[in-house]
Amino acid sequence: MTTRFDVLTIGNAIVDIIAQAEDDFLVREGIVKGAMNLIDTDRAEHLYAVMGPAIEASGGSAANTAAGIASLGGRAAYFGKVADDPLGTIFAHDIRASGVHYATRPLNGHPPTARSMIFVTPDGERSMNTYLGACVELGPDDIDEAVVAQSKVTFFEGYLWDPPRAKDAIRLAAKTAHAHGRNFSMTLSDPFCVDRYRDEFLELMRSRTVDIVFANEAELKSLYQTAAFEAALEALRVDCAIGIVTRSEKGCVVVTREETHAVPAHPIEKLVDTTGAGDLFAAGFLFGLTNGRDLPDCARIGAMAAALVIQQVGPRPREPLRAVLAEEGL
Amino acid sequence: MTTRFDVLTIGNAIVDIIAQAEDDFLVREGIVKGAMNLIDTDRAEHLYAVMGPAIEASGGSAANTAAGIASLGGRAAYFGKVADDPLGTIFAHDIRASGVHYATRPLNGHPPTARSMIFVTPDGERSMNTYLGACVELGPDDIDEAVVAQSKVTFFEGYLWDPPRAKDAIRLAAKTAHAHGRNFSMTLSDPFCVDRYRDEFLELMRSRTVDIVFANEAELKSLYQTAAFEAALEALRVDCAIGIVTRSEKGCVVVTREETHAVPAHPIEKLVDTTGAGDLFAAGFLFGLTNGRDLPDCARIGAMAAALVIQQVGPRPREPLRAVLAEEGL
Repeated sequence: MTTRFDVLTIGNAIVDIIAQAEDDFLVREGIVKGAMNLIDTDRAEHLYAVMGPAIEASGGSAANTAAGIASLGGRAAYFGKVADDPLGTIFAHDIRASGVHYATRPLNGHPPTARSMIFVTPDGERSMNTYLGACVELGPDDIDEAVVAQSKVTFFEGYLWDPPRAKDAIRLAAKTAHAHGRNFSMTLSDPFCVDRYRDEFLELMRSRTVDIVFANEAELKSLYQTAAFEAALEALRVDCAIGIVTRSEKGCVVVTREETHAVPAHPIEKLVDTTGAGDLFAAGFLFGLTNGRDLPDCARIGAMAAALVIQQVGPRPREPLRAVLAEEGL
Repeated sequence: MTTRFDVLTIGNAIVDIIAQAEDDFLVREGIVKGAMNLIDTDRAEHLYAVMGPAIEASGGSAANTAAGIASLGGRAAYFGKVADDPLGTIFAHDIRASGVHYATRPLNGHPPTARSMIFVTPDGERSMNTYLGACVELGPDDIDEAVVAQSKVTFFEGYLWDPPRAKDAIRLAAKTAHAHGRNFSMTLSDPFCVDRYRDEFLELMRSRTVDIVFANEAELKSLYQTAAFEAALEALRVDCAIGIVTRSEKGCVVVTREETHAVPAHPIEKLVDTTGAGDLFAAGFLFGLTNGRDLPDCARIGAMAAALVIQQVGPRPREPLRAVLAEEGL
């Protein structure tokens, strides 16, 4: 059967509010460095009041991945919930202008579009503070099954276990995808997110609801509750068809039952802001996978896309990745 | 009499929506390159629909100048009108978080906060498309005369002649400033803006309503309707107490009745986005002037601030300018 999309991604639709901050600010405000901190309205108001001058950019992990795939020349679609408000308009504009098919019905009324206040410390690390807003309303009604059926891979972010009904949407999408012989994929998103939903994530993998799993080293170790990287990698190899573990400047490792591929990180000039690194890695990898590339090449394209986004402020590359791909001979 | 502020600036309070574009896009859409194009609601909707993925950042020429002065360590205040809506919240947050005193009452209801769609071409030039929104409501009621009286210099943007009642606000502010022995300053803003209000701008200068005038070369030539730079400079020398003309990579010239100072541009590595260049030049110059520096030093500080902002995307420097000033030995 022909496909309409290479990759459909599903996630929390978020606008990022990005400012610089010192490490002692994070300590003072009780923000867990490098993590995604969930916040409520009061906390959001407090943090915005003490935040420095900011810029705004559309974000959301899986949305960044979809934008990255489109930027690479892939055919991408996205499901995610915004409200019918100015930030929702910005989010919808940006993802469509990136070339991604996006038609999720916006929420009419309260709560407003989600936003994440992101503090970037001098070392380039980002610490996120996310108010989920309209994302809490994403549910099975938002799954356009025709789009799932027509996508080679459907990919979602583990963060979707935070809002109440998104997991039902994901289970429906997985069923539809597999009924049409498609692959289903997830990212573990964040080590604390893994800690919140460890058993459910392992069940998704072991029940073969999920075929392809993306994790970084901290998430992998959190999943298997071990400090032993190699042991965790062996467990991952058994629990999914393809496992991809990113290790920042140490590159990444791709494992299947039979294969192991270690691919180095792409060189960078200056680390500016790590926001979007994992999202863009997944974009590159899934673009490669759905366009007939072998696993090491998928990882190389992922590494290139991640390298590009961490050398700028904001989670989506401003340069078209397709051009960079060609320059790099990938 | 003691002062509370070094510089008060008054202008159109705008949030910038910034995207990359090719030159043929500008031609196709009828956007005058390098200029500030005024647009209405329909045009704004059309341009946003054809605009690529964007980022948002607080802007507004005189607001950028105020933020720059605060970033240099100066005491700055700002008057400008937003609406009580999400973009207005972003604008107010950013300028206050920059350390600028900002207390203009937001407009309750329609029209919404102003926004400018800025297209940055591969040469780094920016072409602005501004929907004035709530700015049209700025009037004499928004002039807090106590703040004017307590500011060494009050500075406004020529763009304020576009909304209907801001000129009345400016005339009131000028009267108050001069009654307290303060200086009054303006930027000519844009060659097409000069073309719209040439006679009024000349009257402001010749009536000594304005003491200190900032212009770039194109604005100066438009003011005196001549292609002869030197002749225009001689006319400027007569028409104001201090005239400052910026000439991009050719540096700037400062003229008074008796003095002429040519100061070179600050070296840059890579031109990224010219948005804010003139605004930050004025910030550096006025910071120097209100902190007892001589005219060539004022121009050097302006050149440094301008150089910094054109090497990033967005109109306000993300690095604190005070630190850069110290590094440069200024």
